[in-house]
Amino acid sequence: MRTIDWVDGKIQTIDQTRLPAEEVWLSLGTVEELAEAILSLRVRGAPALGVAGGLGVALAAQRAQESGEDVGEAISQAAALLSSTRPTAVNLRWGIERVRRSYDPTHPRAVSELVKRARAMVDEDEKINRLIGEVGADLLKGESRVLTHCNAGALACVAHGTALSIVEVAHERGLVAAVTATETRPLLQGSRLTAWELKRMGVPHRVTIDSGAAGLIASGDIDVVVTGADRIAANGDVANKVGTYPLALAARANGVPFIVASPLSTIDLDTPDGNAIPIEQRSASEVLEVNGSRVAPEDTEAYNPAFDVTPASLVTAIVTEAGIVRPGVDDLRDLIDSTQRAERAALSGEKS
Amino acid sequence: MRTIDWVDGKIQTIDQTRLPAEEVWLSLGTVEELAEAILSLRVRGAPALGVAGGLGVALAAQRAQESGEDVGEAISQAAALLSSTRPTAVNLRWGIERVRRSYDPTHPRAVSELVKRARAMVDEDEKINRLIGEVGADLLKGESRVLTHCNAGALACVAHGTALSIVEVAHERGLVAAVTATETRPLLQGSRLTAWELKRMGVPHRVTIDSGAAGLIASGDIDVVVTGADRIAANGDVANKVGTYPLALAARANGVPFIVASPLSTIDLDTPDGNAIPIEQRSASEVLEVNGSRVAPEDTEAYNPAFDVTPASLVTAIVTEAGIVRPGVDDLRDLIDSTQRAERAALSGEKS
Repeated sequence: MRTIDWVDGKIQTIDQTRLPAEEVWLSLGTVEELAEAILSLRVRGAPALGVAGGLGVALAAQRAQESGEDVGEAISQAAALLSSTRPTAVNLRWGIERVRRSYDPTHPRAVSELVKRARAMVDEDEKINRLIGEVGADLLKGESRVLTHCNAGALACVAHGTALSIVEVAHERGLVAAVTATETRPLLQGSRLTAWELKRMGVPHRVTIDSGAAGLIASGDIDVVVTGADRIAANGDVANKVGTYPLALAARANGVPFIVASPLSTIDLDTPDGNAIPIEQRSASEVLEVNGSRVAPEDTEAYNPAFDVTPASLVTAIVTEAGIVRPGVDDLRDLIDSTQRAERAALSGEKS
Repeated sequence: MRTIDWVDGKIQTIDQTRLPAEEVWLSLGTVEELAEAILSLRVRGAPALGVAGGLGVALAAQRAQESGEDVGEAISQAAALLSSTRPTAVNLRWGIERVRRSYDPTHPRAVSELVKRARAMVDEDEKINRLIGEVGADLLKGESRVLTHCNAGALACVAHGTALSIVEVAHERGLVAAVTATETRPLLQGSRLTAWELKRMGVPHRVTIDSGAAGLIASGDIDVVVTGADRIAANGDVANKVGTYPLALAARANGVPFIVASPLSTIDLDTPDGNAIPIEQRSASEVLEVNGSRVAPEDTEAYNPAFDVTPASLVTAIVTEAGIVRPGVDDLRDLIDSTQRAERAALSGEKS
């Protein structure tokens, strides 16, 4: 299952706001429709937003060509509109720019080349995530009871996911006894999305309230904790969905491995450590209202950060498409340097 | 404000499920009505349940006498029914047994003596909780930013509360900068009840999702964590609302004191340690449904424990009406022995 893809000249994506009750597929034919889908969180998840941005630029170029409008101008407008939908989403702007930069108006088939470039991003994302699953599943020792947080699954990417890619591959290898998903307040991505993906995979699973996970780990019912990451600093500190840090504390206190699954693109060597990662505050109403009705007294305020930071010292392993890094043992910089060297070598081999 | 009391031959209590939107007072005239109120969490909180158990036995005796039924038999039936509503709640059974044991069928006014005994528990609970606040407030060093979990307030007791009694007394002394209340999924006692009490007290406060508390503690914004307890084992292990344990882990990891406020009656010397405390599982629907509508996919199961256990090693101090115990330094048994000796001495002084 690709949760976002280029199909028949349009962007096809599953509407995440309707899950798990309904499986509604959208076919987005204009950049405006895509912008609405991103703004309404029908498409969400860092890698999926990167791909959506790239496909959006291709879509704009193709529509402009069909209607005889200026393609360069259409791309600029699309980039501005899409960027404005989620101002903090780094991957979205990264995907937009990656495809936009590849536009060469002098090329005879400039627009179809652009579409090809955007579609290559989709393929690449799928391949990277499957690799993360394969690398990570090797870490599981025998049939394991896994705990995961938020949604680091196919719905956040093109396919497979990051943490859930490990679950998927491990499940294929008969290494998953069961998965416990934290519900992930305030937006309940765990009970809505992760549970839906696990059900689709046929993995035995259950949901716990976020604060139930620590006691569950202490009771000896969890063999490994696996989460995704929103940003990884150069020293291995991990910013991820709020609530990841207490899971890492509980895992460490009870001798349970804590594994972070993430593409190399999430590692930001320009961020020295977790203190340098800005923590986005979201709307108080997400906490103080449930289903649109007020829970807390009027005037009560809320603290509602999107992320927290897990210190590298609590992370057993970071699983990437290029291999495993154990913070405190291996260096993230070395992994990225060697991967870049290998990519350059492959590229020069292709060219020669 | 007494949140539970004996008024005109019935049990008067505030319906906690209707707060903070509405302040609805219930007048419970039968043991069955009381059992329903306990089961539905209209009455909740360890000390309040102790008082409710005691008043429930008195209520049963009084109703039986009025209708000419066997009082002893009615007391036994009430004890069994009320005990079954919350199997982990040691205070509930303690309150039931305390009043039940005082029943003397040979006494000419046996039933009114029983009611007198139960009403004395209400007075005593109010006094104990105020004392806990005074003892605990002495621990605060200057104006403090306090984090608390669930509701250990007046609503959980007769008045004042345990953790919130410390906040109340400290606030009177100008020692509270602000309180952060965890929302406390799944039933949101923090955002519904604790925020309501803090607002009533005029204490600056805010609510965080449960899994946001660890990051908040790590960021240096919390000076002390104060919670209540549902049961304390002889070695100092504390069973309290699920989510207490990860707060204690985060407090320890960041050098923040973790204080448990609790009457002596919550200490169960017959329970050697946390492993011996049964953890009540509650209905899956509390997790999988929000406002009555299903969030998770059909067939998805839930893990929904009411409590978790915080090891004594993570507890900085247990604050009781008789003084402070530092697990690992002081012995709970010594405190209880000396308190019982003092009570016996006072009692023999009264009798002589």
